[in-house]
Amino acid sequence: MFKKVSIIGLGLIGGSIAAGMKKRGLVEQVCAFDADPIALQNGLSLQVIDETADSVEACIIESDLVVLAVPVLSIPETLVSLKAVFKDGSCTVTDVGSVKSPIIKTAEEVYAQVPQNLVPGHPIAGSEKHGVTAANPDLFENHKVILTPTDSVSKRATRIVTDLWQALGANVMEMTASHHDVVFARTSHLPHLLAYALVDMLSKQGDSLEIFQYAAGGFRDFSRIAASDPIMWRDIFQANQDEVLNSLDNYLDELGDIREMIADGRMEDLAELFKRAKLARDYFSGLGE
Amino acid sequence: MFKKVSIIGLGLIGGSIAAGMKKRGLVEQVCAFDADPIALQNGLSLQVIDETADSVEACIIESDLVVLAVPVLSIPETLVSLKAVFKDGSCTVTDVGSVKSPIIKTAEEVYAQVPQNLVPGHPIAGSEKHGVTAANPDLFENHKVILTPTDSVSKRATRIVTDLWQALGANVMEMTASHHDVVFARTSHLPHLLAYALVDMLSKQGDSLEIFQYAAGGFRDFSRIAASDPIMWRDIFQANQDEVLNSLDNYLDELGDIREMIADGRMEDLAELFKRAKLARDYFSGLGE
Repeated sequence: MFKKVSIIGLGLIGGSIAAGMKKRGLVEQVCAFDADPIALQNGLSLQVIDETADSVEACIIESDLVVLAVPVLSIPETLVSLKAVFKDGSCTVTDVGSVKSPIIKTAEEVYAQVPQNLVPGHPIAGSEKHGVTAANPDLFENHKVILTPTDSVSKRATRIVTDLWQALGANVMEMTASHHDVVFARTSHLPHLLAYALVDMLSKQGDSLEIFQYAAGGFRDFSRIAASDPIMWRDIFQANQDEVLNSLDNYLDELGDIREMIADGRMEDLAELFKRAKLARDYFSGLGE
Repeated sequence: MFKKVSIIGLGLIGGSIAAGMKKRGLVEQVCAFDADPIALQNGLSLQVIDETADSVEACIIESDLVVLAVPVLSIPETLVSLKAVFKDGSCTVTDVGSVKSPIIKTAEEVYAQVPQNLVPGHPIAGSEKHGVTAANPDLFENHKVILTPTDSVSKRATRIVTDLWQALGANVMEMTASHHDVVFARTSHLPHLLAYALVDMLSKQGDSLEIFQYAAGGFRDFSRIAASDPIMWRDIFQANQDEVLNSLDNYLDELGDIREMIADGRMEDLAELFKRAKLARDYFSGLGE
């Protein structure tokens, strides 16, 4: 049970954490700070939070948990605002950024090493919805949360954050930040890029309105993620630039190979590739998607 | 009301047409031919069809409708088996191939022009399921069916096939075969290729089993179509080779542009592209997917 939790950045994820903790009686009081006063007002109206603050520094006073749910590119400056918390050490801090190396890097630059009470995290629960008005106390149920603590982070802080996510219904796993960023470049960031690219390509063609009319199930599934928040995704690509470029280059190689197969009429090679992919996809489905 | 309908190729689509016609009382008797005797046996057991034949020629005797639901690459040879039907002209013939130029081209090669009783068609109703055991009498309800008759095809034959599909609940549209193949290269064939390529790329990487474990919603939606039938898709890429290569080249250009934006840190250009794509995707959703 936390006495006071501070949510820095009150969007879908920050709001859902607050709502989930309140629903389950995990917190006495939730304070939020957001650069957008309307988000704070909505949070109060929806009773997702109990009070608001005018600054990060004011919000975190006497908190025993601080959740950084700001856009991924705002995490570095927010970390700097938390000097007092990291000096004191009694309050636990976690974040929800989709890219994990930058927070580690910034923490090491500002504090020499990742503070013992900072546990970087990433809940794998997205939605095409956004904003605190879409907050859902059960958003994380049966979803994965990945924590990427370094050796300098205390076992106690990691335990506190793990317990919190488990109480919200999530399955918690640990890995290094760099491994996280490779895995998510491949399985999340690259697919989003490919979907945006396809929809953009079609929308630029003269008969695009007509084309979308005939687009069937495959296209619908494929392109759904192109409805995601453009600014959030721009920031993710900036934050994970190197790994995204690596994955994209691998993919361009793969597409180049496939182009050759089709151009050369090597259809059995193409069928083998399709079979291999289907086998992998069926295996993935078997994991209980 | 048809007296006898022949289904040549008894898979998911052929079986669903037969089941849909029987359910709605549109046919007295359904005969099927398939190279696979087990498909025919299953069709009889499930009462999707009434009788089977040992050859295309035997099946079509006294039919007033012939539906070619064979794999797209088998359509040319099947067309040749239908000489008697095209000479007589009283029976209507349609097909369900996903690529439409090859059937037109073959018909023109074999019969000088597309026979007046041959109405090429493409029901846009797929499924990751296949085989007659997955036949569904309502598979086409609220789905689009595209017909691509040439000028040599009679209005009467086109009307008969249109009425049939409408009776099965589909929305029928007409366009030229070449336009159809461009549209579907972009909105269906290319997305399938991209999904197969991504899943294959991931499956070849050393830690692929682990990677699939972390793959979240975006990847799931994106990669679902990579579970489609590899042989059917190999054939579609062979049949629509030129248009697929055109679309793939457009896409490679688009990905190349995006790669440059990320590598050069032109993140506002990337955000503009994402916004344009989101707008188009939201428009597409608004069409009532």
